[in-house]
Amino acid sequence: MTKSDSFEALTPETLPARLGGLPVLTARLGADPGAWAVREVGDGNLNLVFVVEGPKGSAVVKQALPYVRLVGESWPLPLKRSFFEYHALTRQQARAGKGTVPEIYHFDEAQALIVMEYLTPHVILRRALIDGRKLPRIGRDLGLFAARTLFRGSDLAMTARERKQDLALFADNVELCDITENLVFTDPYFEAELNRHTPGLEPLVAELRADRDLKVEAQRLKHLFAAKAETLLHGDLHTGSIMATEGDTRVIDPEFACYGPMAFDVGMLLANFWMSLFSQAGHEEDNSREPMRAYLLATVTEIWAVFRAEFSALWRSERNGMLYARSVFEERGDALGAEQALDRVLHELWDDLLGFAGVEIHRRILGLAHNADFETIADEGLRAKCEAPALRFGRHLAVNRHRIHSIEEVNALAARIDREARA
Amino acid sequence: MTKSDSFEALTPETLPARLGGLPVLTARLGADPGAWAVREVGDGNLNLVFVVEGPKGSAVVKQALPYVRLVGESWPLPLKRSFFEYHALTRQQARAGKGTVPEIYHFDEAQALIVMEYLTPHVILRRALIDGRKLPRIGRDLGLFAARTLFRGSDLAMTARERKQDLALFADNVELCDITENLVFTDPYFEAELNRHTPGLEPLVAELRADRDLKVEAQRLKHLFAAKAETLLHGDLHTGSIMATEGDTRVIDPEFACYGPMAFDVGMLLANFWMSLFSQAGHEEDNSREPMRAYLLATVTEIWAVFRAEFSALWRSERNGMLYARSVFEERGDALGAEQALDRVLHELWDDLLGFAGVEIHRRILGLAHNADFETIADEGLRAKCEAPALRFGRHLAVNRHRIHSIEEVNALAARIDREARA
Repeated sequence: MTKSDSFEALTPETLPARLGGLPVLTARLGADPGAWAVREVGDGNLNLVFVVEGPKGSAVVKQALPYVRLVGESWPLPLKRSFFEYHALTRQQARAGKGTVPEIYHFDEAQALIVMEYLTPHVILRRALIDGRKLPRIGRDLGLFAARTLFRGSDLAMTARERKQDLALFADNVELCDITENLVFTDPYFEAELNRHTPGLEPLVAELRADRDLKVEAQRLKHLFAAKAETLLHGDLHTGSIMATEGDTRVIDPEFACYGPMAFDVGMLLANFWMSLFSQAGHEEDNSREPMRAYLLATVTEIWAVFRAEFSALWRSERNGMLYARSVFEERGDALGAEQALDRVLHELWDDLLGFAGVEIHRRILGLAHNADFETIADEGLRAKCEAPALRFGRHLAVNRHRIHSIEEVNALAARIDREARA
Repeated sequence: MTKSDSFEALTPETLPARLGGLPVLTARLGADPGAWAVREVGDGNLNLVFVVEGPKGSAVVKQALPYVRLVGESWPLPLKRSFFEYHALTRQQARAGKGTVPEIYHFDEAQALIVMEYLTPHVILRRALIDGRKLPRIGRDLGLFAARTLFRGSDLAMTARERKQDLALFADNVELCDITENLVFTDPYFEAELNRHTPGLEPLVAELRADRDLKVEAQRLKHLFAAKAETLLHGDLHTGSIMATEGDTRVIDPEFACYGPMAFDVGMLLANFWMSLFSQAGHEEDNSREPMRAYLLATVTEIWAVFRAEFSALWRSERNGMLYARSVFEERGDALGAEQALDRVLHELWDDLLGFAGVEIHRRILGLAHNADFETIADEGLRAKCEAPALRFGRHLAVNRHRIHSIEEVNALAARIDREARA
């Protein structure tokens, strides 16, 4: 492995020579780098991703580039995001358990590369949902992952010193945070240069950008995201950041990790299932996707139910941080006081996650980074017909988030809006 | 001046020899340190404070001790608080203007000492209020100070990178933050070892510590304080941290500075005026303090009115940070959208400041750090009679903060509770 401090992007041709001396790789793949097969598989917006296979086994090498891959060298982006991804992965594994993220074999800060487990036969969850595949474990696995990482990364569980040190560490992830702050919360709501949307949506886009209540709420959500340093977020927890099989679920790509409100990760996650719902009409033949729609709504319900149950269990068993101290509740015989506080925390989280879900839907249809659920619908007319009800649904969530009572109510609304758009 | 890195506490005897080589001091006081008169005047809970006077002028030397002065060496406290105080003072001066804090002449990190302007004939505002003095400028000056420091230290005004760097810097002020987190929000609500209260209050104290809604709200406020890293707070903005004359107001002692919610500083500040109101009965003869009570309530009204007006003016003229971007409001001809957002921000700030005011009142009567307004009432029966209505008032604010409409309503309630307690 190169010991040089000066960054150099890997290629499939140079990778064996450059990483061939790395014991964690030779032990796993086989001692002769000449026998390794390397292919670049990165389909994301930012980085290089190599799958390396040798006689004995396989690994993934993910390397950051000093710019946004999707845009090019005109948009520089610090290599340090690899550092934050590495530190987020180690924390997520510690908090959610081994087997919830890829196993990390090696991190090289100067080369901004992480060597990790090659997940196979896993597929990107978003791809599976587009294909109409129903993966049975994701609702439960993702509900647990969110509850455990968000609870255990907060002042509910950590010591104040430890959390503040982590807050300071991740506060330096400025450029990636800035992408979220601007691309999610601001750009979709005016004619920003990087925006694009499917032709045909113009009247609705104009309506949304003239919608004062929506704009104010989006900016309040940005304020919440930027100011509420409550826990270490994944920061980009959508269905493209999840790899799954029938029996396994892994969360990947936390380079957007930062301290923020718990509701952000949960809201973004649910939003991507709702978008999948609205996109199904673009992928179906003869109403073939009705069971898929039911599966998606059931998965949303399950994620939120499992999240609440696990968060509540952790509240009762691991609430050892400085917040909601046992000394004023349980230790004074007032366990019900702690339950009342839990209700308030979950209620606020619910209100906020609906808002974050709403803006996530908007930015995926109106902003720079669209998602494949809609993008793979080749017929633009059909795509716009799927996206329009999603936009209206997102607006409803963002603006009415304090007046929505249950996940069943939201799902029923999504199903109705979707059905009416297809009628 | 000593160049040694090892900390050594100053004494009036050693100060001239140790600081006599400091050009900023000799230039101000006179070249011969032997002609300096030094007295230690620290009456706070934490530090040493020396007034140094020479033939040409004067200065103050404030030095941190490696423990809490009020408690002793059994409670260690890092010298680094002096570093945070220094950096907070420089930011406050930049944001609120020269003449709002003491001018800084010199900072020595290793010796944890700050050499600054000796404010004379200023008095500690709390002392003036106890004495029944009505200082005419404080309402306006403090409203402006709070609005300018809180607005300009947030994502409303700063660049994201600059604010996140400052957030990381002050995140290290763990021990001082910990004092606020525990002494303000938790200890008063159970039988913590360091608590004390005036004899006679026992039944009311028991009632408050059994009050589930109050305890839940206090913990929610702690959650807000710990998680909402919105702006650089003074962190201890009470009437003992303000020095004033008829014509000048200075804010001192920001060693508790940390990132937190804007409402915290404002709430603590107003709480200390309301406590002064409730304490007046302990200092008056023959209803002589009626005009003082009117002055205190008018000052509360003025602080909040000036704060809102200045905050609103800055919102319109200096909102150049990433929040509530002009690109989605003014630049689309939607100035009213920005006003709607301002209303929402001020409304939330209002709800939260009432809560912080409530717990501040409680901790000053039930916790470790009491205040002189009540403590100087020698007659314990009379003191308890002043403190009891203050406790009830604090409970009302904390629990009902989302259902209180105006500062006039709060002041009328305070006046009524106070009057009835004296009847």
